[in-house]
Amino acid sequence: MVHTATATAPVNIACINPLLAKLPTWSPANNRYWGKRDTKLILPTNSSLSVTLDQDHLRSTTSSACDASFEAGDRLWLNGKEEDVKEGGRLATCIRELRGWRKEMEDKDSKLEKLSAMPLRIASYNNFPTAAGLASSASGLAALVASLAQLYSLPQSASELSRIARQGSGSACRSLFGGFVAWREGQAADGSDSLAVEVAPQSHWPEMHALICVVSDAKKGTSSTAGMQATVATSPLLQERLKVVPGRMDTIEKAIKAKDFDAFADVTMRDSNQFHAVCLDTQPPIFYLNDVSRGVIALVEELNRAHKEETGHLLAAYTFDAGPNAVIYAPEENMPVVIEAVNRFFPQELAAKEPFEVKKAELPKGFNENAVRIWDKGSVKQLIHTRVGDGPRRLDESESLLKADGTPKTLA
Amino acid sequence: MVHTATATAPVNIACINPLLAKLPTWSPANNRYWGKRDTKLILPTNSSLSVTLDQDHLRSTTSSACDASFEAGDRLWLNGKEEDVKEGGRLATCIRELRGWRKEMEDKDSKLEKLSAMPLRIASYNNFPTAAGLASSASGLAALVASLAQLYSLPQSASELSRIARQGSGSACRSLFGGFVAWREGQAADGSDSLAVEVAPQSHWPEMHALICVVSDAKKGTSSTAGMQATVATSPLLQERLKVVPGRMDTIEKAIKAKDFDAFADVTMRDSNQFHAVCLDTQPPIFYLNDVSRGVIALVEELNRAHKEETGHLLAAYTFDAGPNAVIYAPEENMPVVIEAVNRFFPQELAAKEPFEVKKAELPKGFNENAVRIWDKGSVKQLIHTRVGDGPRRLDESESLLKADGTPKTLA
Repeated sequence: MVHTATATAPVNIACINPLLAKLPTWSPANNRYWGKRDTKLILPTNSSLSVTLDQDHLRSTTSSACDASFEAGDRLWLNGKEEDVKEGGRLATCIRELRGWRKEMEDKDSKLEKLSAMPLRIASYNNFPTAAGLASSASGLAALVASLAQLYSLPQSASELSRIARQGSGSACRSLFGGFVAWREGQAADGSDSLAVEVAPQSHWPEMHALICVVSDAKKGTSSTAGMQATVATSPLLQERLKVVPGRMDTIEKAIKAKDFDAFADVTMRDSNQFHAVCLDTQPPIFYLNDVSRGVIALVEELNRAHKEETGHLLAAYTFDAGPNAVIYAPEENMPVVIEAVNRFFPQELAAKEPFEVKKAELPKGFNENAVRIWDKGSVKQLIHTRVGDGPRRLDESESLLKADGTPKTLA
Repeated sequence: MVHTATATAPVNIACINPLLAKLPTWSPANNRYWGKRDTKLILPTNSSLSVTLDQDHLRSTTSSACDASFEAGDRLWLNGKEEDVKEGGRLATCIRELRGWRKEMEDKDSKLEKLSAMPLRIASYNNFPTAAGLASSASGLAALVASLAQLYSLPQSASELSRIARQGSGSACRSLFGGFVAWREGQAADGSDSLAVEVAPQSHWPEMHALICVVSDAKKGTSSTAGMQATVATSPLLQERLKVVPGRMDTIEKAIKAKDFDAFADVTMRDSNQFHAVCLDTQPPIFYLNDVSRGVIALVEELNRAHKEETGHLLAAYTFDAGPNAVIYAPEENMPVVIEAVNRFFPQELAAKEPFEVKKAELPKGFNENAVRIWDKGSVKQLIHTRVGDGPRRLDESESLLKADGTPKTLA
């Protein structure tokens, strides 16, 4: 009988961004240098914090299966296309670690079936187009780890699993939790304490909504891994950023615990800007933001200015990772105003699929229409309205992406 | 008889940029805080360095006149339009200081005519459109100071005069010298040692050419003074920048003295990027570069990469001040390649007026055409090819912009 397991995992969007370092980097929090270690560990320059988004809207689904009858060698299909599981590559590292944990269990308990010795078959699908420019590797790797942990009945905690996911794709470690998640940079030379922890569950602050503004970018950018290496190697300002981040982590964790949106928004926007500042301080410079991204920033800043004048509070917060897409966080009650404003200044070709009931809303009194220009249709290609969500989910065997022979049900 | 003097002054383009601070700022070089002083002093956060451009191409011309018969009160026309010489304003400050020096001379030597007691008439013209987005205030204020120094026969050195020009418009102090000019931040609380000095004259390295790429920007930006205040008040990364700049000043001064273009170009590009990084690290963030500016950076970086592969040297250097216009520095022999490349990727509506003989040139072998996109016509509105130039010039009375009655010859 083929053993099989299927899991889904969520996308996460960082409020405090790390760089991933393969080069020696001074860590002020740890008072020593990072790096110069196994470059496959994928260790960050600093702790980071993200919000996990709702899997009802954005998710990766991964099925894994193992059976003694399968031809030798592990095989993996991503969105129906077979990928090479390269020896020593990131996928192989994750599989090797999880299989190793299973092997330990089997060695201790001879009654356990020897799953670790069987060839693996894995199929993974993202329900959002890669073209959307959303980081699919984080949700994909998290779903892979969750699925294998399930297949092997591993007793390890989500934090322990996050350490494995980290080695697959840095920020994937944060997708092993729902709600609000910190990735602690850790201190151990082998990266064993560089893992994710839950700061607060989804249920603590379910009113946290997010609007993803998908921005087209004609130009092919630097790969984010190569870019981060260059920043770590050449940005003098990064040293100051590394001193600033620990305080910001404290601030945002307190803000989340207190459900203080003003403090959350303030630090999120400052940190997004500072992350992109150190990218620009790289030689040659790295630009992820384009003119449309700048336009979204100008819009949110003006909404905040006017809303603060009226109410004393911030309305929303923008953040950008290694690309031009904006993610705008806002409490559910503020989201109608955000959506109204984005639609007005970034007209859409087609009405967005709106999963929530969004009432018609007015811009804040005192909003200065001249502070933001109206962009061409399609400057923002797509809006995705979602909210904070839960961690990886376990699906039924009936939902497996694999057939009994270990090949995917759907091919590309 | 009406007393009159006419001077021209050049534009300067910084390679190391300062911020102008009205707020307390830690100065690592001086190991103390700047600011909290008379906000009218216009003191910089750090020393800066610029290249003076040729007045044959870009210049401000200022005539000044004084006569006992003029109606009381000073009057000034800028490009033929009368400007209010506000009591306590920047213009009035410069005039008061220079008149004060004349008064001292007259008090010591009773044979001197009492010019300091006479009403002033001043007319100033820029030979480049304000719309070009070139900082006209630097050349304009420098020409004003040079013209009044001439009118009053002041014995003060160009450095002493630069202190006055600084109070008129910060970077104006650097336009009182030709060649390569440093503005030393100074240490005195009253700003008396914050002034410009010559690093090397024009004649030392006349092969230094510059290509100004005038980039249109639809959006109205922050005023640069207000923006700099916000950066000083809110950018954590500025603190690190202030530690980095003194070393960069040393490097670029040595590069200029040794005519080492590679070192000059490297520090110029890094410093431009770092300046814009701290602008982005401001809350709310300040963006001076737009997508076209980024395109120029990508082009120069790719030219440099390919040229370095072929020759071991850099071809050119970009720099941007508080706006989207690029200035590309290159040795005269490299400029044909730069112009060829800019024309190919940023097609011009009209051929630029080319003051130099520029031979047709090929892009470097190994230039990757895919690294840069071809932009729409007019993305770069205008090219101005110029070179390092001399300091303020004294013109004949026949070239005065003022009539004998103290009114301008040409009105707007």
